[in-house]
Amino acid sequence: MSVYLKDIPLDEALHRFESALREIDAWGILGIEEIPLDENALGRVLAEPVWAKLNSPHYHASAMDGFAVRAEDTIGAQPSNPITLRLGKSSIYLDTGDPLPAEFNAVIPIENTEPLDGLGGISPDIRKPDSIRIRASIPPWSYIRPVGEDYVATQLVLPEGQILRPVDLGAIAASGHKSVRVSRRPKVVILPTGSELVPIGSELKPGDILEYNSVVMAAQLKAMGADVTRFPITEDNFDKIREHVLSAAKEFDLILLNAGSSAGSEDFSSRVVEDLGRLLVHGVAVRPGHPVILGLVNPAELSSSRKPVPIVGVPGYPVSAAMTVEIFVEPIISCWLGKPAQKYEVETAILTRKIVSPPGDDDYVRVALGKVDGRLLAAPLSRGAGVISSLVKADGLVILPRGIQGCESGESVRVQLFRARQELEKTIFCIGSHDMTLDLLAQFLSKKDRRFVSSNVGSQRGLISLQLREAHLAGSHLLDPETGDFNLSYIRQYIPGRSVRVVAFLHREQGLMVPRGNPHGLKGLKDISEQQVRMVNRQRGSGTRVLFDYHLKNMGLTQNAFLGYEDEEYTHLGVAAAVASGRADTGLGIAAAAIALELDFVPLFTERYDLVIPQDYLDGDLLEPLMEVISSEQFRNSVSALPGYDVREMGKVIADLEAG
Amino acid sequence: MSVYLKDIPLDEALHRFESALREIDAWGILGIEEIPLDENALGRVLAEPVWAKLNSPHYHASAMDGFAVRAEDTIGAQPSNPITLRLGKSSIYLDTGDPLPAEFNAVIPIENTEPLDGLGGISPDIRKPDSIRIRASIPPWSYIRPVGEDYVATQLVLPEGQILRPVDLGAIAASGHKSVRVSRRPKVVILPTGSELVPIGSELKPGDILEYNSVVMAAQLKAMGADVTRFPITEDNFDKIREHVLSAAKEFDLILLNAGSSAGSEDFSSRVVEDLGRLLVHGVAVRPGHPVILGLVNPAELSSSRKPVPIVGVPGYPVSAAMTVEIFVEPIISCWLGKPAQKYEVETAILTRKIVSPPGDDDYVRVALGKVDGRLLAAPLSRGAGVISSLVKADGLVILPRGIQGCESGESVRVQLFRARQELEKTIFCIGSHDMTLDLLAQFLSKKDRRFVSSNVGSQRGLISLQLREAHLAGSHLLDPETGDFNLSYIRQYIPGRSVRVVAFLHREQGLMVPRGNPHGLKGLKDISEQQVRMVNRQRGSGTRVLFDYHLKNMGLTQNAFLGYEDEEYTHLGVAAAVASGRADTGLGIAAAAIALELDFVPLFTERYDLVIPQDYLDGDLLEPLMEVISSEQFRNSVSALPGYDVREMGKVIADLEAG
Repeated sequence: MSVYLKDIPLDEALHRFESALREIDAWGILGIEEIPLDENALGRVLAEPVWAKLNSPHYHASAMDGFAVRAEDTIGAQPSNPITLRLGKSSIYLDTGDPLPAEFNAVIPIENTEPLDGLGGISPDIRKPDSIRIRASIPPWSYIRPVGEDYVATQLVLPEGQILRPVDLGAIAASGHKSVRVSRRPKVVILPTGSELVPIGSELKPGDILEYNSVVMAAQLKAMGADVTRFPITEDNFDKIREHVLSAAKEFDLILLNAGSSAGSEDFSSRVVEDLGRLLVHGVAVRPGHPVILGLVNPAELSSSRKPVPIVGVPGYPVSAAMTVEIFVEPIISCWLGKPAQKYEVETAILTRKIVSPPGDDDYVRVALGKVDGRLLAAPLSRGAGVISSLVKADGLVILPRGIQGCESGESVRVQLFRARQELEKTIFCIGSHDMTLDLLAQFLSKKDRRFVSSNVGSQRGLISLQLREAHLAGSHLLDPETGDFNLSYIRQYIPGRSVRVVAFLHREQGLMVPRGNPHGLKGLKDISEQQVRMVNRQRGSGTRVLFDYHLKNMGLTQNAFLGYEDEEYTHLGVAAAVASGRADTGLGIAAAAIALELDFVPLFTERYDLVIPQDYLDGDLLEPLMEVISSEQFRNSVSALPGYDVREMGKVIADLEAG
Repeated sequence: MSVYLKDIPLDEALHRFESALREIDAWGILGIEEIPLDENALGRVLAEPVWAKLNSPHYHASAMDGFAVRAEDTIGAQPSNPITLRLGKSSIYLDTGDPLPAEFNAVIPIENTEPLDGLGGISPDIRKPDSIRIRASIPPWSYIRPVGEDYVATQLVLPEGQILRPVDLGAIAASGHKSVRVSRRPKVVILPTGSELVPIGSELKPGDILEYNSVVMAAQLKAMGADVTRFPITEDNFDKIREHVLSAAKEFDLILLNAGSSAGSEDFSSRVVEDLGRLLVHGVAVRPGHPVILGLVNPAELSSSRKPVPIVGVPGYPVSAAMTVEIFVEPIISCWLGKPAQKYEVETAILTRKIVSPPGDDDYVRVALGKVDGRLLAAPLSRGAGVISSLVKADGLVILPRGIQGCESGESVRVQLFRARQELEKTIFCIGSHDMTLDLLAQFLSKKDRRFVSSNVGSQRGLISLQLREAHLAGSHLLDPETGDFNLSYIRQYIPGRSVRVVAFLHREQGLMVPRGNPHGLKGLKDISEQQVRMVNRQRGSGTRVLFDYHLKNMGLTQNAFLGYEDEEYTHLGVAAAVASGRADTGLGIAAAAIALELDFVPLFTERYDLVIPQDYLDGDLLEPLMEVISSEQFRNSVSALPGYDVREMGKVIADLEAG
């Protein structure tokens, strides 16, 4: 058994799979199905062109409520020279849609006629007069919908491959059909395997992994138009996995085996595929997604009439699994349905942070997107294949092809967009210090037609981002050791080029997060060093780190006295999680994060968290809803309800600082 | 009974409806439903924010297959100075995802270790060695997924109003949920009414109208996320319609009554609404869609606990019906589901033809879109509310607000896009003469990643469009009366500013279309005038018109001698339909159109139909697939199979003409 997979390039892997499917004549639509023409045909794909069977309309129809006439009888009618036409002989009333009798060739809308009774007075029933008086002539074929105006028999109505929209169903019906021939939906089965897997919602013990990949993949496949079945979890057992793959191969068009696709001690997928058919690919140079398996199952037990069944071994990490379905499965499903493979809109964006990429891989990097000063900015999200939140937050993908080692901050990159451009125009891009209330702010803003995207890089980097015009605002709580005030001196230092307004957001308590009951009895920073308990720190440049260092210095302590000083986390919650898990005994942070993870909290300091906003953006439409939200009672109450927060100055202008 | 509806402005109508719904507390989500977290939750809308119940991962997990170690034990390891760690005491093997035992704080990937057996040789089982040798130190927390790396308990996972995507389902599961609280789907009923209506697929007699609006509307509503029911057709009978509305009001959240919403003699909708509740709006100044009814049904028979039920009287024309659902119903469904109303991307385009618009109406004009020389062009499609093909072909909508009388050709307009921008980039925009084979060409091109949009304005206007840079190519068959050749002299005249290539497309027979059996025994143009039979003509500027006039002149005949000379159609099929319906006795056109409508055909002339392509586009990617298609055997065979077509010169370069 090998430790490494010998990865092959992505395009070669895709090509090998496609070729194998072509060889067994399985690259094209799977079959044709005739279904009734109703709302359930929505989204199905036409397997054949639709040709009109009927003319529509199939008769000359009145286009209005009005009177059918002969156009020649109206010649000469003028306001001062009306013409009167007798009903029955020279005219007849028609409702909209009524057929035009052969002796007439135009319709006059009812509102353009004067209805007369037998004596020449105005008729009481405007639809049943004895005659009508008109004061304008009318050209032939006016207000008539001629035969075939919409569709003429034999005309092409819709081409093969059309994905049926609501109006298409109307067009097919109008042209004389009551059913429609569409491609059969591919039947796909998902087999979750792994002894560590437990169903969604289970009580968890260490080592248990919630099995939700099958739900994500089933939803992806459903959205693509496949007919999906999820099998229950199979434990890591060669014979059982083999048995389930075999039974699936008898019924389904495609098998997704998740996971066991790597080369670990309990990764049976490749052996099962080899045993039951042909292993085409094991390992692809794509990130995330490396240990992909592509193969064909063709066991002797299958009936001779059945083709080999393609199988994809999907890696276990949730991001890898979802991306594998996008990259390897979607093109097959689209081909089988007879529609073009999914394509995203592509746009150029500027990277806000350096990306390092393995040069041998096609690398799919999730990014958050926002538009600042007309430039589209891409902020890379977590690269971890286990971090599904990075896919949830992703507004797009930057694809770094093989041969590229990475990209520098500020470089232009091509991004596949997951969101409409107009959503990006409504994105408020906030970079800086992390605070839990930013999630709350995003919530409130989503109701005001704004997306609030916050990238957590620490206070200092946030201020620099404003100078670089890489954000609309920054959240900052940097203590100035000289003055004891917050932010102002740093802003002058880091944003020399722009005039900004500093708006107070909130005051919050910073203190020590400690396990329940505070087992080490910590009362302040000093105790950490004296007792040599293990701490976890925030990253350099963050406001909390500045605060920590400030008080360290004030107390005359040195970093070296602190065990774990170099161990950095990027968020308050990250620090809390480190303490909750026992990785550290304590860390400095905010009360809300401690309470979220059921830790105790030892309050030490109060700090002001400001929003720093360049003056250029203050008057724009984009940020207006933000100002409304932070002025609203409802938002202030929601923040006050969180432990350790104080909104007494929320929205107050702390300072307007001029550029330079 | 009034003849006219007193139309109110669109925004006022929408406002009145919304206010009435607010009054009865029916403007907001209808209710909350807890559903299992599986693929069926896809597309549902979160009724509440989702907060993490668990940390994910919920334990420190190995991120790789490898050996857990204490980072401090690895300090000093170097290529030349390896360190050996004994299994059990100083290290332990972990599969990816295994929990990290408390005594370790880092993982070394298996491929970075040397497995040793008890004697210091290489161990045969790399996962169960006696010890491992390493040649590099490793920092703490390497290759470990710490608790809460993805989600930390209490963190906001997804906001209220999120439309659930596949990855969202994974995030919700990962954060500890097994069900999800979503907004209840609105229950909508569609009641088709009208004595003239017959079900899809019926045998038709004049006056029968196929009832397919309910299918289109049901599909629209389904796509919006509603739960739709279609009632069978109700005849035009006040009591029956009233009875069905009443029974619908007991069960459904919204009633769509189609049609009978106008003020015709059998339009009962408004009376039914008045009888059962409140008529809020009857008639809106929007085009298409005028006779819209908005109301609330609140009959005494409803149980006291039930709120009044909104009802929309939907006009009968298919385009009006579909647009009414878009404009009036969609915002309610979105509001009830708790998601933002649908918004299309908007883009600026240049009109290729003048639009006249009633100044009192908000006017929705369907347009075909294509990009030529970097400019987005909008070609207005049929304005008829009965022409559903105009919605099928529409790539977008130009909205002309009240107060605007229309737009000139060449003016910039704002367009709501129905298609992705990248599709527009792949659009070949062809303007000129109509030929049935262009549909076939579109079919073939759709398989080569190109949209072929043809706007039929006649040969002459097509050539002018090339001069104006409003198309990528033009189809033309203009006979030069001086030379007897086709197109060349006109091209010099109409496209002085551009170098073009003239490529032969096909030869086709032009002749007289006549009813079966040729009742007037027509043998040539002369017979038309001599027998004074009624003809239908093609529009000025079309190649067929030029051909007609050429032969007229050659024979020394005058236009006045031809009855119906002024009666114009824009396509061959239009001419055929006019003859088939008896509106005319004959018309000049191509064989294929005659045969399509079961007419007889008297061949008179052969003409060459050319594609005229500016040289600038010849080398571009866009048109390459077009050149491939017209060179392909398969396409040529398809065209040859049509009656009256000859492909002997297809693809031949007739001339390269230099600019000016």
